[in-house]
Formats: sequence, C-alpha cells, structure tokens
Amino acid sequence: MAEVSASARPVTLPVIDPGPPERGDAARNRGRILEAARRLVAERGAEAVTTDDIAAAAGVGKGTLFRRFGSRAGLMIVLLDDDERAHQHALLFGPPPLGPGAPPLDRLLAYGRARLSFVDSHFALLSDVGRDPQTRFNAPNTLHHSHIRVLLEAADTTGDLDAQAAALLALLDADYVHHQTSERGRTLEDLGDAWEAVARKLCGT
Amino acid sequence: MAEVSASARPVTLPVIDPGPPERGDAARNRGRILEAARRLVAERGAEAVTTDDIAAAAGVGKGTLFRRFGSRAGLMIVLLDDDERAHQHALLFGPPPLGPGAPPLDRLLAYGRARLSFVDSHFALLSDVGRDPQTRFNAPNTLHHSHIRVLLEAADTTGDLDAQAAALLALLDADYVHHQTSERGRTLEDLGDAWEAVARKLCGT
Repeated sequence: MAEVSASARPVTLPVIDPGPPERGDAARNRGRILEAARRLVAERGAEAVTTDDIAAAAGVGKGTLFRRFGSRAGLMIVLLDDDERAHQHALLFGPPPLGPGAPPLDRLLAYGRARLSFVDSHFALLSDVGRDPQTRFNAPNTLHHSHIRVLLEAADTTGDLDAQAAALLALLDADYVHHQTSERGRTLEDLGDAWEAVARKLCGT
Repeated sequence: MAEVSASARPVTLPVIDPGPPERGDAARNRGRILEAARRLVAERGAEAVTTDDIAAAAGVGKGTLFRRFGSRAGLMIVLLDDDERAHQHALLFGPPPLGPGAPPLDRLLAYGRARLSFVDSHFALLSDVGRDPQTRFNAPNTLHHSHIRVLLEAADTTGDLDAQAAALLALLDADYVHHQTSERGRTLEDLGDAWEAVARKLCGT
C-alpha cells in the first residue's frame, strides 16, 4: 500500500465513500427543498403536493430534488424524520414540563398534549410515508412507548407498565387522532383532556 | 302479467333473484369447504393454505369452491365472519359472565380474555383478509368498541368513555396481540392479566 504523508492527505480521505462533497449551494438547495416541501404539505396536505410543485417552489430543477432525496417518498421521510427528531429532542432535553425537571406525572400529561399536536399537524406526512403494520410497533413508536413507560414508572404506577404505555400510546396514534378529529368532531383539546383523564387513572391520582 | 294461482306457485317465487336453489349436496359442499378451510388454516396458518389444498381436503372440485365463494379471499372473509358472528353472539346473548346476567365489571373482564383468545386464534385469518387502516375504526371494531363502552358505563366509569374504550380495545388489536405473543414472549394469560388491571383502574375498582 502506498504511504501518504499526513500533511499531503486531503481532508475528506478518512471518510468512506463520502460521495461528492456538499458544496455551499448544494446544502442551500437541500434546505430550500425541505422548506418548500414543508410549507406546501402544510398548505395542501401531502397527497396534493408533487415533486414538480416542490422543485418550482424551491427554485431548483427537478433533477436536483431527485439527486438530493432519491424520490418523492425519500423526501417525505426526511421531512418527517427532521420534525420527529426535533419533537423527540424537546421531550428528552427540552424545558419542563415536557422535558426533565418537572414531576413525572406533569411530564406525562405535557407529553400527551404535545404528541397529539404533533400527530395532528403531521398526519398528512405520517399517512403519506406509508404505514406497514410492522412499523406500528417499531421506531419511532418504540421511543414513544419507552418515554411513556419511563414516566409511568417514575410516577410509581402499579401493574403492567408495558400494557398501560401501549394503551396510552394507542390514543396518540395518527390514524386514531385523525379519525376522531375529522369524523367525530372532537377537538385536540377534547382528546388531550381525555388522555389526561386516562393517564391520571392509570397513575392512581 | 299472467295470473298464477296461489296453490300453483312454487315456494321459491317470492324470493327476488334466489339464484339456483341450494340443494342438499350444495349445502353440504359449502359446509365441507368451510370446515376443511378452518382446519387447514388452524394447522398451517392462512398464508400457507391454497384453494387446491382446501378443495382436496373437502373432497370437492376447485370449480365448486369458486362457485360457492367467488375467490380465496371471499372464502377467508366468510370464515372469519362466521366465527366473528358466533363470538359476538356469545357476548350479547350467551351465558354469563361473558353474556348478560353478570355484573358489568365481571362481564368486561370476561370479555377481555375472550377477545384475546379470539384474536390470537384468528390472527392468521385477520391478517390474511387484509387490513385497510379505515377498517380499524369500522365494523366489526365498532361493535367491540360499543360493547366495551356500554359495560364501562354500566360499571359507573367516570370520564370520557370513548377514549377509555379505545384504549382498552387497542390492547386487543390482532397485530398488537400477535406482536406481544410472538416477539415479546408474553402469554395470553399475561395479556389477560394486564388487560384486567387496566380495566379495573379505569373502572375505579
């Protein structure tokens, strides 16, 4: 193997298959495409937004969009994933009562309302990305299940914590929430109140 | 229109489009096909059972099977529907504690265990018939939701009964139960105990 002196080595060398380096305009295009997609999805619902619309709104060519995200589905997954990550960060590291520092029951109740709001505002994306029955019990649901379970335990909840976390999580399922708001005339506040009442009963308060 | 004297009228006349009258051997074939299908599905799981297998086990030709049920999917739906109907009959009209006559909380607890057992033994069929997200909130789930809600109400449960019924129903979802038993090593008895504990907390006992 040929020896290369450290000083002569280009900075990208240690990275395995880095692909073309992301230049400033590539990063800008990526940001623009995500921002345009997020805005259009919010305005029209995911199902009514095409890659043509997104590319036009971002001021980039369609080829650029596909080079950055592979496909329409790929773009939608990145969009949802970005928001899901920010949401999870708020639960785990954000200010109380959602984040650490508040009593566990207060955190649990804050979580229920925050998650309801998230699944409501992201229903179009959640629905669009596609729901394999398998994914219902895997990430990111696993993280949410764990989060509820940890808070139930910290609140000294008795009994089978997995089942109780699953029951609470079911009331935050995107399909369930959408069905309740769109076909049953329930508001997010109704659903938040109902969730709080169930959580309080399970925690024994 | 030609007049037909009542006495001369064949007994099938008032029925609109009765199709060919079901002769004794046709009814027998239908029963045999369903019985063979139910046995093979129980032995091998629905996905491993073909219409060839069912026709052979029932001792009928494949043409007979398709004439009676239209398609493999049609046969699976009839099979599930027959069992679901018998199960619902037991809830609504059968002996206590599942049926009427026992106190509402006892009926609710008996229901949880009976339904767990049903979705466990029918998972292959439930999975095979196909699950549109829409159907999750429609019949037969509507009936089960109502049944739980009625019993919660009769047990003087406080708070939002719809949300509490939905939370309890989620723990009886076929995918959830299958995931718990096949990937989490939970038994039906574990799940029944957990369900009972949640139901008792919601009912305030």
